[in-house]
Amino acid sequence: MKKRKVYVLRIGHRPSRDKRISTHVGLVARAFGADGIIYSNTNDRGLYQSLMKVVETWGGPFEVKLGGHWRQIIKDWKDRGGVVIHLTMYGENIEQSDILRKLRELEKDVLVVVGAEKVPGEVYDLADFNIAIGNQPHSEVAALAIFLDRLFEGRELTKEFKNAKLKIIPQIRGKKVVKIG
Amino acid sequence: MKKRKVYVLRIGHRPSRDKRISTHVGLVARAFGADGIIYSNTNDRGLYQSLMKVVETWGGPFEVKLGGHWRQIIKDWKDRGGVVIHLTMYGENIEQSDILRKLRELEKDVLVVVGAEKVPGEVYDLADFNIAIGNQPHSEVAALAIFLDRLFEGRELTKEFKNAKLKIIPQIRGKKVVKIG
Repeated sequence: MKKRKVYVLRIGHRPSRDKRISTHVGLVARAFGADGIIYSNTNDRGLYQSLMKVVETWGGPFEVKLGGHWRQIIKDWKDRGGVVIHLTMYGENIEQSDILRKLRELEKDVLVVVGAEKVPGEVYDLADFNIAIGNQPHSEVAALAIFLDRLFEGRELTKEFKNAKLKIIPQIRGKKVVKIG
Repeated sequence: MKKRKVYVLRIGHRPSRDKRISTHVGLVARAFGADGIIYSNTNDRGLYQSLMKVVETWGGPFEVKLGGHWRQIIKDWKDRGGVVIHLTMYGENIEQSDILRKLRELEKDVLVVVGAEKVPGEVYDLADFNIAIGNQPHSEVAALAIFLDRLFEGRELTKEFKNAKLKIIPQIRGKKVVKIG
């Protein structure tokens, strides 16, 4: 069986304002087992480079893409048979939804859409599912982490990354980092 | 049985650089069921006000405290019989640790410490447990969300907040917000 692909689409990134949050979204996508992230409607090379530096140091594979219009990216994903999940505080509460069971049954590639402050109303209609990680205001960084953690059932937290230069050896106190290769 | 208190201690907040990430940390603390957050060594009123505005609109109780030295806050917490968990990528991997079982057995008040970029080495020694939400670089916002989600076993995502002015009614498409009271 072909492994299902999971990508994150970050829409509404504003380089001046969102650099650090968007970086955290990308780092979470990688650390929580997604195959890549797409930042639509932007050409923020600084963002791209800071994520690729983490991939170089801590391993991959993890793809970072810049640009394209979110509408086209979502439509293309669906045209290729994938499913689109939009994370929003207004959606079905994940605790009261059977979305995870559905996704396991579907075995389709998953695109997880997370917005910045204001998400165009059209996204709610284009998405196959609008899912709330609780119906309270918090953070797209947290929402993405919880969604992926549940999708991968915690296994992502012990994932071995390939071609890493550094690796952490977990410690009860202090830090231990080893060089590889 | 007295309900156990869970607070978050955010150390190393720099108003110029960390405002949005620190705000997300605070919003996650509230939305994921903590009783309050302490930002040590800062007097950032803007941060305080933006969080209190969320409490006013979306409900509480949730306490936000500014100031105090992190060392003293941690020591006081332990002196009063509480347990201190430091979230760090260098710590014991939560997937390979029995920390959650221990915390359930202990029934002590929990202080969850999250740092900004660089955490003083002393924190690793003062904490009762150094726990990694995976041993990969990502985000203190995500780490806090996952830790609280596991501590509260997902129940926090349907928590009812008190004295809210607005409440979201979960929708399959679109947004529905109702005024209360």
